[in-house]
Amino acid sequence: MPPEKSPEVPVLADVGSITTVGLDGDDTLWDSESHFVLTTKRFADLLEPWLPSLDAVEERLLEVEAHNLALLGYGVKAFTLSMIETAIEVSEGTVPAGHIREIVGWGKELLDHPVELLDGVAETVDHLASRFRLLLVTKGDLFHQESKVARSGLAEAFAGIDIVSEKDPETYQRVLDRHGVSAGEFLMVGNSVRSDVLPVLEIGARAVYIPYHVTWAHETVDPERHQGFDTLSSITELRQYLSTAGTA
Amino acid sequence: MPPEKSPEVPVLADVGSITTVGLDGDDTLWDSESHFVLTTKRFADLLEPWLPSLDAVEERLLEVEAHNLALLGYGVKAFTLSMIETAIEVSEGTVPAGHIREIVGWGKELLDHPVELLDGVAETVDHLASRFRLLLVTKGDLFHQESKVARSGLAEAFAGIDIVSEKDPETYQRVLDRHGVSAGEFLMVGNSVRSDVLPVLEIGARAVYIPYHVTWAHETVDPERHQGFDTLSSITELRQYLSTAGTA
Repeated sequence: MPPEKSPEVPVLADVGSITTVGLDGDDTLWDSESHFVLTTKRFADLLEPWLPSLDAVEERLLEVEAHNLALLGYGVKAFTLSMIETAIEVSEGTVPAGHIREIVGWGKELLDHPVELLDGVAETVDHLASRFRLLLVTKGDLFHQESKVARSGLAEAFAGIDIVSEKDPETYQRVLDRHGVSAGEFLMVGNSVRSDVLPVLEIGARAVYIPYHVTWAHETVDPERHQGFDTLSSITELRQYLSTAGTA
Repeated sequence: MPPEKSPEVPVLADVGSITTVGLDGDDTLWDSESHFVLTTKRFADLLEPWLPSLDAVEERLLEVEAHNLALLGYGVKAFTLSMIETAIEVSEGTVPAGHIREIVGWGKELLDHPVELLDGVAETVDHLASRFRLLLVTKGDLFHQESKVARSGLAEAFAGIDIVSEKDPETYQRVLDRHGVSAGEFLMVGNSVRSDVLPVLEIGARAVYIPYHVTWAHETVDPERHQGFDTLSSITELRQYLSTAGTA
């Protein structure tokens, strides 16, 4: 029996034209950012003797990450190297090697962390896979993302898995071209307005925003300032959002 | 006028069946390993107070890299983190933060290093592109490899660029499937018997080995112990290797 329809959940107009749904990975299908947030807190504790303010450490780390982005890209290894650099800088070169060893250990923990699917993801992906071609479009470190996809148990549901280094309009266009999908038949779903929504709208495809409770500062934009997309409060609402008379 | 044929260069039998040529990137099209070798030497100099033997430092670093491979994968960021870990271990936690800062700096230099095409690569790729569908199949960090491909000036010559996390038979099969190429029409070219030759032969495609003067220890196997592929001494010999009555 299909679930009750909720009056608060929007329904996509012209859903019949959608053949392909793209899903983001980190913080859309599985938890990611909260591990970074926890690690950043441990990092601030470690640097407490030199900079006794969580905010100040976070701010400095974010600056170092932003500065390193063009060279190191996204992902845990880049984050770990930026933490090491920040620790050396904030301590003016006096941080003991044991602290650096600890930071390297945190990086490895992040890479090795079990993949925890968000609530309702397994059933929703399963349902969507029966009605649409699903593409996983995820950004970050190739090796780590592949490992996460494999451990998620979801790989079989996807017709394509595209791990990309940047989510800009050109990248989305390339992904669609590779799979022979036109913009008009594509809907992207993700937790970042900046990466999963705006560049997708720019190439004439559609996008749904599903906010997560934490977002990396580099990904934040004010969703209120943009339009042309719907917002859902949970991935489980996708089923109703994509319903037609005969489905959901 | 076509170049003279050299009697020492083999010619591929049944070249007419080949439609698609795969090329490896690092140390096949452009120089890579020699930068790692140089950095390893600087690293050994840095650790001289604790372990005054280049061989011993190299050996320890290689062990740490091998141990980290499953978690960190390939590439400069993994190499940098392994150097940091080795430095802390070899110094028993006494290495000063300034040394770690230096190691992080070397990692960034490696990432930022200009892409230097090997001799004859530009002309050879240009010639091959006029006769075959070319695929670039390269292993390592997505962000860094994309950046190298872009800076190489060769991207336009390739019908597909596949950056993979591991070069095993399954990966090659996936790459061929994605491009709709059968094993019988594919020839892979690269400097690693382990990564560019053996897994390709295993799926029934063909491969050519072009050794480079330095090879990462993790990639070395004894080519004499394997058969079923030809060895060329330079990429420029590919033109004759792939010649038919009417070409080269």
